[in-house]
Amino acid sequence: MIIMHKGATQEEIDNVIAEVKKLGFRADVSRGESITIIGIVGDERHIPFHQLSILPGVKETRMIETPYKLISREYNAEHDTNRIIRIGDVAIGDDKPTYIAGPCAIESKSQMFRIAEEVKRAGAHILRGGIFKPRSSAHSFQGLGAQGDDEAREALTWLRDAGRKFEMPTITEIRGETKVELIAEYVDILQIGARNMYDQDLLGIVARQGKPVLYKRHFGASVEEFLSFSEYLAVEGNKDIILCERGVLPIGKGKSFTRYTLDLAAVPSIQEETYLPVVVDPSHATGRRDLVYSMSCSAMAAGASGLAIEVHYNPAESWVDAAQAITADELKNIIDTCNHIHTIAAENKRKAFKKSGR
Amino acid sequence: MIIMHKGATQEEIDNVIAEVKKLGFRADVSRGESITIIGIVGDERHIPFHQLSILPGVKETRMIETPYKLISREYNAEHDTNRIIRIGDVAIGDDKPTYIAGPCAIESKSQMFRIAEEVKRAGAHILRGGIFKPRSSAHSFQGLGAQGDDEAREALTWLRDAGRKFEMPTITEIRGETKVELIAEYVDILQIGARNMYDQDLLGIVARQGKPVLYKRHFGASVEEFLSFSEYLAVEGNKDIILCERGVLPIGKGKSFTRYTLDLAAVPSIQEETYLPVVVDPSHATGRRDLVYSMSCSAMAAGASGLAIEVHYNPAESWVDAAQAITADELKNIIDTCNHIHTIAAENKRKAFKKSGR
Amino acid sequence: MIIMHKGATQEEIDNVIAEVKKLGFRADVSRGESITIIGIVGDERHIPFHQLSILPGVKETRMIETPYKLISREYNAEHDTNRIIRIGDVAIGDDKPTYIAGPCAIESKSQMFRIAEEVKRAGAHILRGGIFKPRSSAHSFQGLGAQGDDEAREALTWLRDAGRKFEMPTITEIRGETKVELIAEYVDILQIGARNMYDQDLLGIVARQGKPVLYKRHFGASVEEFLSFSEYLAVEGNKDIILCERGVLPIGKGKSFTRYTLDLAAVPSIQEETYLPVVVDPSHATGRRDLVYSMSCSAMAAGASGLAIEVHYNPAESWVDAAQAITADELKNIIDTCNHIHTIAAENKRKAFKKSGR
Amino acid sequence: MIIMHKGATQEEIDNVIAEVKKLGFRADVSRGESITIIGIVGDERHIPFHQLSILPGVKETRMIETPYKLISREYNAEHDTNRIIRIGDVAIGDDKPTYIAGPCAIESKSQMFRIAEEVKRAGAHILRGGIFKPRSSAHSFQGLGAQGDDEAREALTWLRDAGRKFEMPTITEIRGETKVELIAEYVDILQIGARNMYDQDLLGIVARQGKPVLYKRHFGASVEEFLSFSEYLAVEGNKDIILCERGVLPIGKGKSFTRYTLDLAAVPSIQEETYLPVVVDPSHATGRRDLVYSMSCSAMAAGASGLAIEVHYNPAESWVDAAQAITADELKNIIDTCNHIHTIAAENKRKAFKKSGR
Repeated sequence: MIIMHKGATQEEIDNVIAEVKKLGFRADVSRGESITIIGIVGDERHIPFHQLSILPGVKETRMIETPYKLISREYNAEHDTNRIIRIGDVAIGDDKPTYIAGPCAIESKSQMFRIAEEVKRAGAHILRGGIFKPRSSAHSFQGLGAQGDDEAREALTWLRDAGRKFEMPTITEIRGETKVELIAEYVDILQIGARNMYDQDLLGIVARQGKPVLYKRHFGASVEEFLSFSEYLAVEGNKDIILCERGVLPIGKGKSFTRYTLDLAAVPSIQEETYLPVVVDPSHATGRRDLVYSMSCSAMAAGASGLAIEVHYNPAESWVDAAQAITADELKNIIDTCNHIHTIAAENKRKAFKKSGR
Repeated sequence: MIIMHKGATQEEIDNVIAEVKKLGFRADVSRGESITIIGIVGDERHIPFHQLSILPGVKETRMIETPYKLISREYNAEHDTNRIIRIGDVAIGDDKPTYIAGPCAIESKSQMFRIAEEVKRAGAHILRGGIFKPRSSAHSFQGLGAQGDDEAREALTWLRDAGRKFEMPTITEIRGETKVELIAEYVDILQIGARNMYDQDLLGIVARQGKPVLYKRHFGASVEEFLSFSEYLAVEGNKDIILCERGVLPIGKGKSFTRYTLDLAAVPSIQEETYLPVVVDPSHATGRRDLVYSMSCSAMAAGASGLAIEVHYNPAESWVDAAQAITADELKNIIDTCNHIHTIAAENKRKAFKKSGR
Repeated sequence: MIIMHKGATQEEIDNVIAEVKKLGFRADVSRGESITIIGIVGDERHIPFHQLSILPGVKETRMIETPYKLISREYNAEHDTNRIIRIGDVAIGDDKPTYIAGPCAIESKSQMFRIAEEVKRAGAHILRGGIFKPRSSAHSFQGLGAQGDDEAREALTWLRDAGRKFEMPTITEIRGETKVELIAEYVDILQIGARNMYDQDLLGIVARQGKPVLYKRHFGASVEEFLSFSEYLAVEGNKDIILCERGVLPIGKGKSFTRYTLDLAAVPSIQEETYLPVVVDPSHATGRRDLVYSMSCSAMAAGASGLAIEVHYNPAESWVDAAQAITADELKNIIDTCNHIHTIAAENKRKAFKKSGR
Repeated sequence: MIIMHKGATQEEIDNVIAEVKKLGFRADVSRGESITIIGIVGDERHIPFHQLSILPGVKETRMIETPYKLISREYNAEHDTNRIIRIGDVAIGDDKPTYIAGPCAIESKSQMFRIAEEVKRAGAHILRGGIFKPRSSAHSFQGLGAQGDDEAREALTWLRDAGRKFEMPTITEIRGETKVELIAEYVDILQIGARNMYDQDLLGIVARQGKPVLYKRHFGASVEEFLSFSEYLAVEGNKDIILCERGVLPIGKGKSFTRYTLDLAAVPSIQEETYLPVVVDPSHATGRRDLVYSMSCSAMAAGASGLAIEVHYNPAESWVDAAQAITADELKNIIDTCNHIHTIAAENKRKAFKKSGR
């Protein structure tokens, strides 16, 4: 849509209409008391708004249609059905919550197996373990994968084998385009971390592996941007996308008491816009072990389809992100409580107000 | 604490120590491999850091102590006990959630009474009703109170009488220092809105009325700032402060799907820092009627002591903020669900990890 | 403008049109390939969008017109002329920059007079001095005005007399509605600080004093909000508004090297939108004495109509904000340099690209 | 540094000291009136703060030392000298500003050569041209490079040859690890875009090419994070880093008048912290052709070492970012004005206040 400046002349308006037509779209003119609006009829995703915005007399251009048609409820027949993503026996997006758990970083074979056993017993469904770690400091441990391809393969084997032994599909974060195929050989779900949300090349390569993708929102991205960039996955024909909320930049001056600001209203907002499942990562969002319980409960009450939680048998000795790791006992308490909350919240939601037309 | 520049000379260090002593504090020097730190022994709240920060050789100054000692658990004997605020039969901060409900703006006597009756029946404990409305546009309805003192008194009477009739204490937002005493004559709890969080004069006057204060976090304030400004209430000797989380500025480009970003991790973070109760306002935070249910559940799961919700029998005709008002039936569903979630979340929290030393 | 949901029925569309008409506006329907848009013909500032947004089938509502018509170039005949605000011999908004200088807080008569003399000699045009100080901590010095009305009057007298003696109009920040008239008795320009930007009651009272107002942007406000709230001043018939950019909240994690993020692109953006003059406060924005020079030059190069700078003969002993105060010698260097830069930047701007239709 | 909780016991303090020693560092204890601080003596960049932060009795941990020692003035002998980066006859970081100009995206050979000729004549020193474009929509043109390696090579050849013909070193943005070597074959300066600021793998590969790197600040990164991530380049032994400020996320609700908020105070702040040169990109920061002039002048007045500007002979037909492209005539006016402003601002800066000890 093009909004003309109040003082725009008829000549300027005609010129804009001509340009719209030249681009192959239809123009619909609407004259208000002081302002003229030119609607563009056609798929707005293909319109070069930037070119139109600088024509004489144009005040501004605005997109009216959804920029993420491929994954939106509004533009898809499956409209009212949620997409359920299945990996073996595990389903994400159905009416039971799914728990992803494991260490922040894989440290050794015994650590991997011990934690796998413990989280399985606590009720987890999917096993996570970091091999390539994005870190704030160039002087910190970057994950076993960063030490070479052999080390990466070894750690990937531990993850895969622990998953097999304890019957859980596996997930690990991708870091670097060149590692995607290597990782896809071993794990079941490919994770795109928050810092890579905007990395369209990586998105393309990952989506093309044909495996489910857990896609994390960037800490500086609006929900609209998050969904718009999901299109980079969807255009590859891969709609097995698990969206993950993990917190945005804290606002305000002074010390922040949590690492990020967990945006839980994003969960139902995204569910309203798209048919994809949404999970929440309370560990990275808060960066605080003592808040993981509350934020897990809160995410479930908000309607999340699952949680991704960092677990270590001895958090104080965890090589990475020790401050946010919890024990398997704590995880069990969270899973039990969350299952309960999820049931109550989901049941009564039927009685709650829903937006019309959806 | 003062951090000296790596290249600071002994003379510069001595000079800083002398200045600290001149201000009446003790200085504790700690020499690292490359950096010298000068600790200031005394109540940091009274230290003119800005003056010290510009002395030669000083790299930066940092506050180590809590800037909100009066309300912090750390600095108070009541440390492990939560403050329970009582207004008649209603208690905020005990182990049962408290619900504040009513119309965004009071429109007429009959509207006030009808909504009061409905929210009472739905399970609300405290009656809210806006008389002085902060609005984004100078061209919008500003509340009955803005039409003159007579209209304000009339609306205040309706609120008070509806509260009496249906046995609920009342609350309304203060807007403008000159109205504080007028409002305090009629209502039981004085609300300081988000936009006035930083208004220290208003804080002083309101606190001095000797009534409980519901104090909302500003949308641009960190939790640390929120708590630091609460000291403006506490220094007046009034510690009946109900803190209220209502969302911060959304981050990222493009359309935001909620009015603000509700920061639910702030609830347990604040509870960790202070003994004051925290409630949540899901109506203003989201600005969306269809999200009030989910965010109410979520707030309860996070451990909030209560909720403040906007209710109207006919949201579509609400003069102000129609998009976020729910009906009393919807409120009832929320209260029933939230009570249930609150019990489960609180019970199992005992088993969850807690920070040491607290 | 109302955007209907893709799946909206004809009945829903008709219903929305009927509601628009009921509100006294005309509805203009525009049907796209998949989306129907209903334009509202009339003054959008008076439309209750929130009510319309919840009608069945409505996806969202958007304002198309400028929400700050009273001060916009687009809606005013004076369109191409800038408003020049005159106080005695001083003009703000003409083609010469105006310098506002003085101490952050007035500390004593001698301090006031000494600084007044020094800034006058350095080239300042308007004398500033804080009497009521907004402070982050309840335990800090709040300005002489906070000590009582007698102290306030005394400090105001010093300011006024120093202004008279050294032939500069005066300005001080308002804090608290009840002090407006007192302050207006003594000073020539009333300043509304950043924290009070949203305080519509204060805006009304201040505007009604009939004196020029220096109005600072809140640190959490977009330019659009800043201009929209300026309407609260303009609706009182007072258009002698000097807009002041003083920095917004810093973004990102970790330490911020400046107190706020000075948004200098706001200067030409605002000039494009409104005919009001814009000045910049580099002192509060940076909080750093060593950056005042660079940001002053930068503001001038951006086209600001003036600067507001904090000056003290001995910054290290300044009671408030010592870290950002500069000396009169430093001010003189800034003024000389800025005058030079202003001339060059303004001259060649004529050759620079300008938006069409303006 | 470790800050103990007010109520920490002697046993807890001893335990923390023991843990610090176990990690191979020395511990320095400082007891205040109510708080005990444990300083860690050693290179803080290697301390696992997260592990220490969860020990019993610990309130919080804080880094005291600079996390970007390799590029800081404080930790380097070259302290007072700026690093000058030379590419052939061009020097960045000396006392003359450097101008980088060219099209946002390379569209064809003739477009490349025509713009190269024009910007050279206007006074530009370095030729830019986008081949791999990061875009917000999966449905937009992604640059010629995205169409295949042959197309990428062809476009790279045009860029290189145009640079040779008109005697300008060249620069293009890297997008994707797998393209780094290909690009490094052809261009002189490798650009890491804002969205890739956090991409540590890419940083490593790019730095190892041994060519100068233009490194852009992410729109959600603080200056501290920006500098900390620069260490990922510096640890590879490549210190030919040109830092580039290009705007951060706009704050506040409602429409933003610029694409990003250009943080010009970052220029002198960064210069204070590091010896590396800083340039500014007014084109992407504002997204508005009509603001490029003002923001260019402003950046120069702030002390930037150069500018990166998008130029097209017919902005309205530019395939990408048409709204911000300027013509070569406009560029010439900017360069002339900026050279003048730069001289004045730099000259008088000598008289301005500087921080002690630096």
